[in-house]
Amino acid sequence: MIILSSYKSTKTLNQSFMKFYSKKNLHFLLHDVFQIETLSQYPFFEEHNEETYNMVLDACTDLSTQKLRPILTEMDRNAPDFVDGRIKVHPDMKDLMQAFGDGGWINSPLSYEEGGQQMPYMIFNATLFIFGAANYSASVYPFLSAGASNLIRSFGTEAQKASFLENLYNGKWQGTMALTEPDAGSSLGDISTSAEPTEEGYYKIKGQKIFISCGDHDGVENIVHLMLARIKGAPKGSKGISLFIVPRLRPDAAGNLEYNDVTTGGIFHKMGYKGAPIAHIITGEKDDCRGYLIGEANKGLLCMFQMMNEARIAVGFNAASIASAAYYASLQYCRERSQGRRVGTKSAEQSLIIEHADVKRMLLFQRSVVEGSLSLLMECSRYADLVRVTTGEEQERYEALLGLLTPVAKSYPSEMGCLSTSTAIQCLGGYGFTEEFLPEHFYREARIHPIHEGTTAIHGMDLLGRKIAKDQGATLRILIAEITETIQKAAAVASLQAHATNLGTTLEKLVDTTMNLSMLGMQGKLEAFLSDATLYLETFGVVIIGWQWLKQGLVASQKLDGTDDEFYQGKLYTMEYFFEYELPKTRSLLKTLQSKTSVTVDIQDGHFD
Amino acid sequence: MIILSSYKSTKTLNQSFMKFYSKKNLHFLLHDVFQIETLSQYPFFEEHNEETYNMVLDACTDLSTQKLRPILTEMDRNAPDFVDGRIKVHPDMKDLMQAFGDGGWINSPLSYEEGGQQMPYMIFNATLFIFGAANYSASVYPFLSAGASNLIRSFGTEAQKASFLENLYNGKWQGTMALTEPDAGSSLGDISTSAEPTEEGYYKIKGQKIFISCGDHDGVENIVHLMLARIKGAPKGSKGISLFIVPRLRPDAAGNLEYNDVTTGGIFHKMGYKGAPIAHIITGEKDDCRGYLIGEANKGLLCMFQMMNEARIAVGFNAASIASAAYYASLQYCRERSQGRRVGTKSAEQSLIIEHADVKRMLLFQRSVVEGSLSLLMECSRYADLVRVTTGEEQERYEALLGLLTPVAKSYPSEMGCLSTSTAIQCLGGYGFTEEFLPEHFYREARIHPIHEGTTAIHGMDLLGRKIAKDQGATLRILIAEITETIQKAAAVASLQAHATNLGTTLEKLVDTTMNLSMLGMQGKLEAFLSDATLYLETFGVVIIGWQWLKQGLVASQKLDGTDDEFYQGKLYTMEYFFEYELPKTRSLLKTLQSKTSVTVDIQDGHFD
Repeated sequence: MIILSSYKSTKTLNQSFMKFYSKKNLHFLLHDVFQIETLSQYPFFEEHNEETYNMVLDACTDLSTQKLRPILTEMDRNAPDFVDGRIKVHPDMKDLMQAFGDGGWINSPLSYEEGGQQMPYMIFNATLFIFGAANYSASVYPFLSAGASNLIRSFGTEAQKASFLENLYNGKWQGTMALTEPDAGSSLGDISTSAEPTEEGYYKIKGQKIFISCGDHDGVENIVHLMLARIKGAPKGSKGISLFIVPRLRPDAAGNLEYNDVTTGGIFHKMGYKGAPIAHIITGEKDDCRGYLIGEANKGLLCMFQMMNEARIAVGFNAASIASAAYYASLQYCRERSQGRRVGTKSAEQSLIIEHADVKRMLLFQRSVVEGSLSLLMECSRYADLVRVTTGEEQERYEALLGLLTPVAKSYPSEMGCLSTSTAIQCLGGYGFTEEFLPEHFYREARIHPIHEGTTAIHGMDLLGRKIAKDQGATLRILIAEITETIQKAAAVASLQAHATNLGTTLEKLVDTTMNLSMLGMQGKLEAFLSDATLYLETFGVVIIGWQWLKQGLVASQKLDGTDDEFYQGKLYTMEYFFEYELPKTRSLLKTLQSKTSVTVDIQDGHFD
Repeated sequence: MIILSSYKSTKTLNQSFMKFYSKKNLHFLLHDVFQIETLSQYPFFEEHNEETYNMVLDACTDLSTQKLRPILTEMDRNAPDFVDGRIKVHPDMKDLMQAFGDGGWINSPLSYEEGGQQMPYMIFNATLFIFGAANYSASVYPFLSAGASNLIRSFGTEAQKASFLENLYNGKWQGTMALTEPDAGSSLGDISTSAEPTEEGYYKIKGQKIFISCGDHDGVENIVHLMLARIKGAPKGSKGISLFIVPRLRPDAAGNLEYNDVTTGGIFHKMGYKGAPIAHIITGEKDDCRGYLIGEANKGLLCMFQMMNEARIAVGFNAASIASAAYYASLQYCRERSQGRRVGTKSAEQSLIIEHADVKRMLLFQRSVVEGSLSLLMECSRYADLVRVTTGEEQERYEALLGLLTPVAKSYPSEMGCLSTSTAIQCLGGYGFTEEFLPEHFYREARIHPIHEGTTAIHGMDLLGRKIAKDQGATLRILIAEITETIQKAAAVASLQAHATNLGTTLEKLVDTTMNLSMLGMQGKLEAFLSDATLYLETFGVVIIGWQWLKQGLVASQKLDGTDDEFYQGKLYTMEYFFEYELPKTRSLLKTLQSKTSVTVDIQDGHFD
């Protein structure tokens, strides 16, 4: 289009100069709320300190600002293409993969011996967050390599590690997770890709995989799929699934690469995050696709679940990062755009829209989502770090807490990210619906997160039906103790007292509801027990984020009366917003969860017309 | 892309065969709930009956199925283009405009003398709904001509009517609403397009308009803008705005067309409903743009508001129509897709996903939005019909009710339509995020409705600050009496009693909250009064839709035990869903509205970083 004379600000439109996350907030969470420096007491982390952490984050921000953000819109408008049987991606991806590899961004959490930097997950995940806020599509590529290589590292043989890890870490090769099939998405136990053992030790793989993120592209030399398949004769269902390394090109003993009968069948065109290709992969059309078993036969799902738990936390970070980018894009607009007059004033000049209470409400909503989510995600990352360096009961405790919070850490940012990016659009009015501004981009992009790595419904069932039920609520009780500790601390601070009481009351009601629902489960009324698990997860999520806001409020109120008072005051306002506008949502949710209705079970197919 | 071997059903993918609305439900609302036949007691409508109404709706459905639906995706993928200073649209639009004109779809509500069919708005709006559900972008063109011609008909001189109406009605010309300017979107009082009187009687127009829907395109011979401008020397603000007819080509006395110095400056690229162009229009660059004053000088906004009220109801219908299309697209998928096993069952075969309670919940949510919205919109249309045929106090009563409900009828379907189409995506899982299926299209499209024709925030302030406040709640009391009548009827039906009580209690709380807020207004605390007007509107909306569901439930429960029991039972299930899952949302909203927090007023610009 031609340049319109409509509202336009160089700052608002120029993406590379636009803020996409708050460094101050990230430091606040890492250093003040979660006190990452305390990790240095453990030998594994002892070489790190505040300075080294901040250097890593600054380097990540530089790469993001200089290389990722400038191609954000290009990657969306000129989406990857399927040409002559291969997928072409943005030409910068080749350099970017190299940069991700060279900078150690793919494997920084690994031990020094393994070529890593022994970086805490709190920092590694913070870099995911920064990359994602700059350009989510571009950030997906290295993250997938990290996930795939982690599986090889954890379950592979020394020979497998030697063949694949180096090139995955240095960005020359791309790793993927090849799980989904046309008839097996959420239901992984139903996959049908087959693996036939051979005398040479490898397996012959045959089948189709869909929705494979970065499943093929020309930014790397080779693609390494971590693929689920069923060994011929294996038990049906999820107990007969094994995990294989299936490279597109297979390295022979001399390190030369030959074609491994992995065909790219096509590319899926998506609504958002178009810059990362999602491929359809066909293996074994010529009966010459070799797969290398990793871990034990028929234990593939167990291996995969380790990676999936990490991926779920990562999805939470991704969702929060997109919401962050949208928040700052809309904030900048609200500071530059004049429209109407603030209620009760009558000036000739229009007011900046950031003076309107409803606009401030929309900004507070977004910020409460972004920073509430990020706080929970950091809490989870801290647990993940502590799992690495502790042992015995202490380790089990962190593992259990991490497992319990994972469905929330994945789903709350994902679901709320859709609403938050929608609110960013609303802040811009008509301009928000146009491609001239970024919020519509983030709105389309955010919508994937409630779907991939397990839909929200699946996480609801995981939380209520598995994580809480499996130990008769023992882990839940540990979590309640954690939350109660925060509530007690906050109750001692006059300005937080009311919020603390509020959260405490809500937590009690949540526990009552949990017990009532669990009773149904124990009585074998499984459908009634789980039919509203999605709503249960939503309720649980609001309470957990309330806990995180109280934690942040505690620190911010201690920090007041020093420097940066505008930041801490803003924190406290956002906390207040959360307790006045978001926490009350549990009232309606709990009412529904306590209702005796069985309408969603009773209604049948024929009633829907 | 190549054809993937992934899940695919001809029915699901073939849009022209896909159901996009429920004829049965439309008939249920028109004939059973709102008894449209009773309009025939008024001479203006006496020639119509059930048969003629249904014929009109069937003809509309045929046109929609045959001509509109087949180009739905094409219009999205090959969006209008700006070529050599003009906008090119889908080549079928020329024939379609002709078809809209020939079929009388643009002016059917007009009197026979004016060339119309004296069609009730209930039917005219039902045709909007059907067209919109088939292809919202295509439906926008004729609707804009209807709005523009209505203004000329209401306020124009006989000569103006003679010059413009015929070609707007027959689809040869396109009408538009040219209100928005770069610095005056929501704040119409700030427009700066100027109009200079001339001795010849016309005005010279100069200025820029943006976001003009169908503001230029090659599907018609001429474009007729109904444009707001400020006559030189007019008072500042909204009291100095006048309304003009500004054609792109002006007809001379002999009926020949000459260029009127109306330039197309560009096209805005949008996230959704891409098939309808949104133009940037520049007038008077060569000082030769003639505008013809319509209505009184400086009374332009009053004229425009008449049209805008109609347009707001229409936006409600549009939003509901998109949600309807998404509902049926996702319903069909849920009936065809197998995945996982229903909780508590263990079969070798996967279950259809429509057997999962959470999927049924997602379908019920969508249906409760679509049919609840449509019911309210029909209620409003009925009021609009009664305004036409009644007089005196009766007429004033219907006018007042229509005015009070308009912000709800615009905003509830718009806001909920975004969530409802999002839920349609979720029903499809990963496929929902791809362009192979329709829900993502509807999700992008739905997002415009909370923005155009007044953002949701503006409607919140309109409801609380104007519509309720202007007569000290007199109209609100009339509405409450209407709702109470429905509640009393329902209370007498055993199966509805609990819902009736629920709605009554909620209504009482809403009234209390209204009084508390209004008190703030009367005390001059305007910002506190209006700061949560958006939430007030949301709460009000849920109560109103609850009223509509109780109305529908009353009729459905009477109809049970006859034919079509699956339909009526489905209605009752959806009503139950609404009362158990949606009405409770008022609890949290009312809690926030009653809170004494002033955080959205107190927080200032500097706190947001």
